[in-house]
Amino acid sequence: MSSSVETPEEDVSVPGRITIRDVAKAAGVSIATASKALNDRGRMTPETRARIQTAARDLGFTPNAVARALVSQRSFTIGLLTNDTYGRFTLPVAAGLSAALIDRGVSVFLCAFQDDPEAARVNLRAMQDKCVDGLIIAGKRIDRGLPIELPRLSMPVVHVYSLCGDDDIGFMPDDRAGAALAVQHLIGLGRRRIAHVTGPLAFAAVAQRTEGWADALKAHGLAPFGAPLNGTWSEGFGYSVGQAWAALPPSERPDGVFCGNDQIARGVIDALTLAGLNVPRDISVVGFDNWSVFAEATRPPLTTIDMNLQEMGRQAGLVLLDMVEGLPVERGLRRLPCRLVTRQSCGVPPPA
Amino acid sequence: MSSSVETPEEDVSVPGRITIRDVAKAAGVSIATASKALNDRGRMTPETRARIQTAARDLGFTPNAVARALVSQRSFTIGLLTNDTYGRFTLPVAAGLSAALIDRGVSVFLCAFQDDPEAARVNLRAMQDKCVDGLIIAGKRIDRGLPIELPRLSMPVVHVYSLCGDDDIGFMPDDRAGAALAVQHLIGLGRRRIAHVTGPLAFAAVAQRTEGWADALKAHGLAPFGAPLNGTWSEGFGYSVGQAWAALPPSERPDGVFCGNDQIARGVIDALTLAGLNVPRDISVVGFDNWSVFAEATRPPLTTIDMNLQEMGRQAGLVLLDMVEGLPVERGLRRLPCRLVTRQSCGVPPPA
Repeated sequence: MSSSVETPEEDVSVPGRITIRDVAKAAGVSIATASKALNDRGRMTPETRARIQTAARDLGFTPNAVARALVSQRSFTIGLLTNDTYGRFTLPVAAGLSAALIDRGVSVFLCAFQDDPEAARVNLRAMQDKCVDGLIIAGKRIDRGLPIELPRLSMPVVHVYSLCGDDDIGFMPDDRAGAALAVQHLIGLGRRRIAHVTGPLAFAAVAQRTEGWADALKAHGLAPFGAPLNGTWSEGFGYSVGQAWAALPPSERPDGVFCGNDQIARGVIDALTLAGLNVPRDISVVGFDNWSVFAEATRPPLTTIDMNLQEMGRQAGLVLLDMVEGLPVERGLRRLPCRLVTRQSCGVPPPA
Repeated sequence: MSSSVETPEEDVSVPGRITIRDVAKAAGVSIATASKALNDRGRMTPETRARIQTAARDLGFTPNAVARALVSQRSFTIGLLTNDTYGRFTLPVAAGLSAALIDRGVSVFLCAFQDDPEAARVNLRAMQDKCVDGLIIAGKRIDRGLPIELPRLSMPVVHVYSLCGDDDIGFMPDDRAGAALAVQHLIGLGRRRIAHVTGPLAFAAVAQRTEGWADALKAHGLAPFGAPLNGTWSEGFGYSVGQAWAALPPSERPDGVFCGNDQIARGVIDALTLAGLNVPRDISVVGFDNWSVFAEATRPPLTTIDMNLQEMGRQAGLVLLDMVEGLPVERGLRRLPCRLVTRQSCGVPPPA
């Protein structure tokens, strides 16, 4: 045991760096005992373990990853493979993941690739060659998988914001309940003629958010204000809808709108405002995403639904670590709740 | 030689995978000869080398990275360390880097961390432990370094969009010349009263872009239209400037504006438009960044300066590979040219 710890330490050590040898010496124990104490393994009195851990802390000892890997059979790195080169969804997930894992000494290596199976293969092979302890597969929409073949992987895998099988472990936002939150907020503010403007029908997220809109209306005995309007995920689409509404008499316009993303919401608001209408007085608007660079810059700032992607990354990381450590983990998809972020585009909520 | 190639192949091989053993058999040579041919090493006739390479291609053989690393002493991975967790600058750099390296079988591992020296240290250590061949250090502003101590690193390092020393190798956009491009475009369209609205004075990029504005005006014998207006990098700041201008008589307003980023430009345009002015007829507006999600959604779509961050990533990757391969590389900072992206916020350029 002691030699398997010492050798790699020496191989990769930097002159002057504190090694486990120094910790063992300071605590008056063998290197093997020091190693066990620092890895929470082996049998010793709590006092001994505490003494060794204190010595390590006082010396500023940080266990070398190669040495720790030899002791624990772990590399203390997690791979994050994604085809979301734009980073809109993956970066918050990665931030949550890193924040959760860095305190455990685990680094996250992100590989982003265009939707090209060959690039996917090269990157996956690199992750395998580097013996990452586990893999997060993160996408850019909930109804598509990545162009990667995973069946031969021996390491644990967790899917985030991408399609996965029934036997996989995955995390997604609860889009349907999130959409219902948005519509309940509009209803709570007294809105009754609530329209829905959203992205292309081909997206599962669109279907789920539309269901949430219908759920909330039904629960309050309200009829949908017209059919959902489907277009592109763009400001331009929202703008054209806003212009059309502005040209109608007030009795034919909605008094509240739930938009499928923040860009559509911004387009709607800009068109209404430019036509002389007031948001939220004439029409209340809710978005979806809480993409802050948009939501905060919209005039007025946008009330919207946040998918809690950072929290999703955090939970995915902790589940993956459990799997790496051999703990039992339930299979299947976890749908995490969204939350409403209130700004000024809906008006003042009624007193609770 | 043959055993150093075979052993790791077998250790990490997946059932059914094509190995160098299969290539050697198909080409009728020893494993050692096949290895040399595929690594462009050793002495053999060009015909033999070609025969082996053809056999490898026909079989779909992709050399295992561990085996290649043992032969070539390389791990075929590059680390990208960044404190740009938002990804605004780093993702385009990473995309260019990955695109350039993937064809050479090199993967890019990105580690993003908040501005926390402890997280930086853990991530850098992880990169070292994984024996990445080289490191790209990428930041989020050109006048700050990352909170990382690098002197002890034995691997080559290239800095991108972050402060580096005279002895380092770095890449930055030529902000000053890029700004001058923007102003020359306005002048070419007949604008003569050209204002500058930009970010906080504490940013070096602000100073350089302001110099470029002054350079171009001077080269055409024009006076600056007022002092540069410094504020936050936000739509809100641009909006307040646009509102103030809209309240002035036309003779006291600029007829062209160069903005320090796209968000400021959008704020200016929105305020002018809402006040009944027309962009570009009354005032032409140029941004900086070509953040397409903003620039394309602005009404009218924004003419802006692109820093060519993808190209910067590509060049940084190729220089880093040269260093990994031991080729001589000139020290110092490379400033890469920016380019003008013409949309509709300045009007139609005059015929060439």
